[in-house]
Amino acid sequence: MRTVSIIGIGQMPVGEHWDLSVRHIAHHAISAALTEAGAEQVDALFVGNMLSGSLLSQEHLATLVADFCGLRNIETAKIESACASGASAFRVGCMAVASGMHDVVIVCGVEKMTDTTGGSTTAGLATASDAEYEAAHGVTFVGLNALIMRRYMHEFNAPLDAFAGFSINAHRNGAHNDNAMFQKPISLDTYLQAPMIATPINIMDSSPVCDGAAAAVLVASERASQYVTGHHPGAVQILASASANDTLALHDRKDPLFLEAAYLSSQKAYLQSGITAEEIDFFELHDAFTIMSALSLEATGYARRGEGWHLAADDAIGAGGRIPISTLGGLKSRGHPVGATGVYQIVEATQQLRGEAGKSQIQNATIGMTQNIGGSGATIVTHILGI
Amino acid sequence: MRTVSIIGIGQMPVGEHWDLSVRHIAHHAISAALTEAGAEQVDALFVGNMLSGSLLSQEHLATLVADFCGLRNIETAKIESACASGASAFRVGCMAVASGMHDVVIVCGVEKMTDTTGGSTTAGLATASDAEYEAAHGVTFVGLNALIMRRYMHEFNAPLDAFAGFSINAHRNGAHNDNAMFQKPISLDTYLQAPMIATPINIMDSSPVCDGAAAAVLVASERASQYVTGHHPGAVQILASASANDTLALHDRKDPLFLEAAYLSSQKAYLQSGITAEEIDFFELHDAFTIMSALSLEATGYARRGEGWHLAADDAIGAGGRIPISTLGGLKSRGHPVGATGVYQIVEATQQLRGEAGKSQIQNATIGMTQNIGGSGATIVTHILGI
Repeated sequence: MRTVSIIGIGQMPVGEHWDLSVRHIAHHAISAALTEAGAEQVDALFVGNMLSGSLLSQEHLATLVADFCGLRNIETAKIESACASGASAFRVGCMAVASGMHDVVIVCGVEKMTDTTGGSTTAGLATASDAEYEAAHGVTFVGLNALIMRRYMHEFNAPLDAFAGFSINAHRNGAHNDNAMFQKPISLDTYLQAPMIATPINIMDSSPVCDGAAAAVLVASERASQYVTGHHPGAVQILASASANDTLALHDRKDPLFLEAAYLSSQKAYLQSGITAEEIDFFELHDAFTIMSALSLEATGYARRGEGWHLAADDAIGAGGRIPISTLGGLKSRGHPVGATGVYQIVEATQQLRGEAGKSQIQNATIGMTQNIGGSGATIVTHILGI
Repeated sequence: MRTVSIIGIGQMPVGEHWDLSVRHIAHHAISAALTEAGAEQVDALFVGNMLSGSLLSQEHLATLVADFCGLRNIETAKIESACASGASAFRVGCMAVASGMHDVVIVCGVEKMTDTTGGSTTAGLATASDAEYEAAHGVTFVGLNALIMRRYMHEFNAPLDAFAGFSINAHRNGAHNDNAMFQKPISLDTYLQAPMIATPINIMDSSPVCDGAAAAVLVASERASQYVTGHHPGAVQILASASANDTLALHDRKDPLFLEAAYLSSQKAYLQSGITAEEIDFFELHDAFTIMSALSLEATGYARRGEGWHLAADDAIGAGGRIPISTLGGLKSRGHPVGATGVYQIVEATQQLRGEAGKSQIQNATIGMTQNIGGSGATIVTHILGI
């Protein structure tokens, strides 16, 4: 199996792009990534996307995007795993290169959640849950996460402001990221006064509805040097790539407060790379809701059960902390264009490893981990990248 | 790169399964395939599906299906390329095994088009075309194919009954297939009296709206012998797997009567396998509409431009003909549950190569080709299988 490296990245600033179509957003990220890679032709485009069918009446999205980008005689496919679509697509890109089926592959995560043609975004997001046994009863996706958060607070005696630190950290880090949707820090007061959206989740616990696209160009590591010349910032290697699943419906889980798929996929990733949690310099986790940050840290080996929120309280997650997370703003501050998020995480990890993260730079970072979560924890994909 | 073999297949009889959910249909095919393979555990499930988001309000489908089938701690992802979703998912399964990332993979194509929760099936199918430049103007997916067929008849002086032979052949072959939706032959009179659905496409030119699921279990060819023991019918090898794209919108094509992506993907497949069109014993092509059979035969090397329909008129496509097509009924008679079709084609090719096609058996078949088309020709995936 060939090891795989990233030789180019691109991203669209996250926001509400009312004047741009999904194809324009994807094109922005793809053309930037191809330019940086110095790759004129690719063999395949894999698109991570969740909602183009439901919200835009557009399936067949990968082929549409390839067409608009002028990429011809290539393989195209959309990969969908709810909010983990981006990392799932990235994994398919890695397989395509690792197998030798393709030499140069581009992966693009894209989501367009504003200016939709039909169906509410809330209904669209609920398609990540079980349509017949969860959504049919009226529970929204935020509602499911609220149930988890409330139960967590009850079980582990976590106070209402237990999760504030996750949101404050994300906004502090995102303040310096030109591609972030929200580029200003928030205070504890702002968090405490934020309106509830599904108790106990307030608006500062929750990532925003937005548009975005991110892209990465992949080649076999042995061929990366052909591209990494002159002023090229250097290749980043995929040290591990793993995915695991759990029950789709929250009520079917043995323990709704443990992200078993995060545990399993991170264990596989540690095993593949021979790297331990302690050796990882930063962790781009899936903070769609602050409760998910706590659960992800617990399942991935950074905190004991019920103690994930202590890491936020102790500021162990800041740039100089034990395990810096959401270093460029995370889903909360950079934004969460759902099917694109997994690729944004990879792109931002690449920025950190190349030393291009500006004021958000983690000093001497050589190994980073990303984790993308689909649904309320049913599909979780973990990557470890290194330079 | 490891070569890949199929060690188990399963399928749900195609039809209108008003009493079954998408998860039940997928489970039927998956459990049959796993039982035949003798595989107790798989490493990944890739699901080919187009419309679960639009028609069933259910994304995250692969993880839902894995959950319902009791498949845990595995990778799951849905792959979508409109009507080519099945073959696209199958390709991802091949990559996963070829790369060595996974040892045992199951691919399931599934589509549920009856008893939907919202949105019309016609609107759903139109999401295969360009939402902003085709569907927005009101053209349906059948309408697009009607435009192609009318232009073909005009350019090549093809009479109104030029395509009848494709439909008659499909129904003749499907009559003996227990999994086919329509199991009775039709006459030329039936074809000629069939009501128009989008002139010049009549109901006998068009594949039906239906439900179905098909599945195949993949392993590295070198490991197939571990599974192929006792009464096992034997492994079938993937000799070539290739995908190509074209413009999404029909009006953007240089030549709307030439399936360039079919030409490119079949040429790649011939090159990969070292097999020529003449050496192929049967061809499961994408006869969603009879015009597509003619175009596919032309682009793939069996007929000159404008002469594909002669093969039907001369009965060169029957079981004893030069290039037997739709040998178990094709999309017309077996049915076209859109995202599942590509996997049905693979499963049926496997039946033929194992000599299990009953009264539809192609004698001494050792090499078969399948071709799955997404949209009006924008994504085309070709496989060559051998025993």
